Amino acid sequence: MQPDSLAPYPPAAIVREVGLRDGLQSLPMVLPTATKLEWLEAAYAAGQREIEVGSFVPARLLPQLADTEELVAHAKRLPGLSVSVLVPNLKGAERALSSGADLMLVPLSASHAHSVANLRKTPQEAVAMLREMRAARDAAGSPMLIEGGVGTAFGCTLQGEVRQDDVLRLLGDLLDAGADRVSLADTVGYADPAAVRRLFGQARRLAGDRLCCAHFHDTRGLGLANVLAALETGVARFDACLAGIGGCPHAPGASGNVSTEDLVFMLESMGIRTGVDVDRLLALRDAAARWLPGQPLHGALWRAGLPKTYSPRFRAA
Amino acid sequence: MQPDSLAPYPPAAIVREVGLRDGLQSLPMVLPTATKLEWLEAAYAAGQREIEVGSFVPARLLPQLADTEELVAHAKRLPGLSVSVLVPNLKGAERALSSGADLMLVPLSASHAHSVANLRKTPQEAVAMLREMRAARDAAGSPMLIEGGVGTAFGCTLQGEVRQDDVLRLLGDLLDAGADRVSLADTVGYADPAAVRRLFGQARRLAGDRLCCAHFHDTRGLGLANVLAALETGVARFDACLAGIGGCPHAPGASGNVSTEDLVFMLESMGIRTGVDVDRLLALRDAAARWLPGQPLHGALWRAGLPKTYSPRFRAA
Repeated sequence: MQPDSLAPYPPAAIVREVGLRDGLQSLPMVLPTATKLEWLEAAYAAGQREIEVGSFVPARLLPQLADTEELVAHAKRLPGLSVSVLVPNLKGAERALSSGADLMLVPLSASHAHSVANLRKTPQEAVAMLREMRAARDAAGSPMLIEGGVGTAFGCTLQGEVRQDDVLRLLGDLLDAGADRVSLADTVGYADPAAVRRLFGQARRLAGDRLCCAHFHDTRGLGLANVLAALETGVARFDACLAGIGGCPHAPGASGNVSTEDLVFMLESMGIRTGVDVDRLLALRDAAARWLPGQPLHGALWRAGLPKTYSPRFRAA
Repeated sequence: MQPDSLAPYPPAAIVREVGLRDGLQSLPMVLPTATKLEWLEAAYAAGQREIEVGSFVPARLLPQLADTEELVAHAKRLPGLSVSVLVPNLKGAERALSSGADLMLVPLSASHAHSVANLRKTPQEAVAMLREMRAARDAAGSPMLIEGGVGTAFGCTLQGEVRQDDVLRLLGDLLDAGADRVSLADTVGYADPAAVRRLFGQARRLAGDRLCCAHFHDTRGLGLANVLAALETGVARFDACLAGIGGCPHAPGASGNVSTEDLVFMLESMGIRTGVDVDRLLALRDAAARWLPGQPLHGALWRAGLPKTYSPRFRAA
């Protein structure tokens, strides 16, 4: 195939930073609030405009994220920043609503086994919960968006195969239940580019632009290749974590989430505008290495540095 | 774009193992011949059918590859194996011809600065040399194929930008000079998927199926994404090194070549048949870790292991 007959890459894409939530929640240490705010400010200064700052879960379950309210309040003072939080239950949704977050991400799992084990709900119970969240949001007259995030979309370490039909049905149910947007996550790093092409292609046929985001892990090294495959189906928003932290790697030393700096580097190199300054991200990564001593960090760009020929599309927002 | 309107992936691809040459030449240790033969046998048993076993360079320059003649002789006894060697000069070409290797890879560099610094020839002098090699091959009545491998095709650490026109002109000159095939290498890890799509698309327009192989480095984490982009332009042969060794990484700890096991895993997961058994490759990687103590190994799959859902297309050849 000649380049002019291949699916075009989009002119711009959004890299949503989820390190402060997905990254930190799986580390054994608690980062001080002041340090998190420093991270948040630096990510914003680097050009990141969508940041998941925490999760409204009981502090006894995730002490790492106990200061989410404070993070949201601070983040809301940064002009043009879309502030998201993860919310696993109705109580959390109430807290999210009163926090003033711009978006609440509700995690579901297409794997019945994973859903019951991790969320203590069947997928359909989770859909019913989201419906109640939507009612609460509407009753409050809040502009907060609700995103249904479907995890284990490409397979599950408990259940093994997850049927594409189950994923698509769950997406449809979520939209019917009132989710403003839906997204797909490869929670355990089972996706490959062909599977991404198939599932995201079908999901976009179903949900259109309401399919808003892809969340890939780099567990087996395919994270960026999967991003590339998703780009071709029209997806233009990707979750990523600074230094690739988090993502519940289930093997010692295995990498977790796609690393923000590598992803931004790939997109900008391709001429896909992210608005993010890679040099600043690399400096932030250096800071994270100091903040998280002894924790496994990932990613490749930081070792080799930018190519001499790198010409980013970055423009300060 | 919907999946059915995207460029199809090929049904099969070849992963050419270059670890015994490109991998070992950049390590400070010399692997004993018996160990190399063990590697060769195991790679063959895993299903690999194209292996670069060494280089015909003076032993004082690359003592790591001094036993190339013996490797070729042994490899030639494995049925159906295509045995390649790297050859940088006419003397080496004579040795390659008498060794009975199936293919001789002649490295060139599209970067004038890199060509002069590393090969001590301008690109045009290297083309003239290949022309003489072709004459020698024909005079000997040998069936050995000659592949012109164009390095620094995506940029150069010395010169910076390498113009696509220069790369394409060099490819054309090589074909005119009698190369049976040509290939493109991202010697320093500067490629990105959009650049791969552009250059490989143009190069295939010029060379058709005589453009036979892509050689990517994973220096900045984009190795597999670049493979994916090249697949879409119709390329279906890729160089790789077991455990991602070699590739002259120019930063401490930076990864070099794309790792064979990760690449085979990606392709097989996508339903692209390689004929290679990933489990056997992972066992071979374990052996390599014992053979190369203290050397930096790369790749992601070995840490996490295969997904529960992995169903390879592997069939013993």
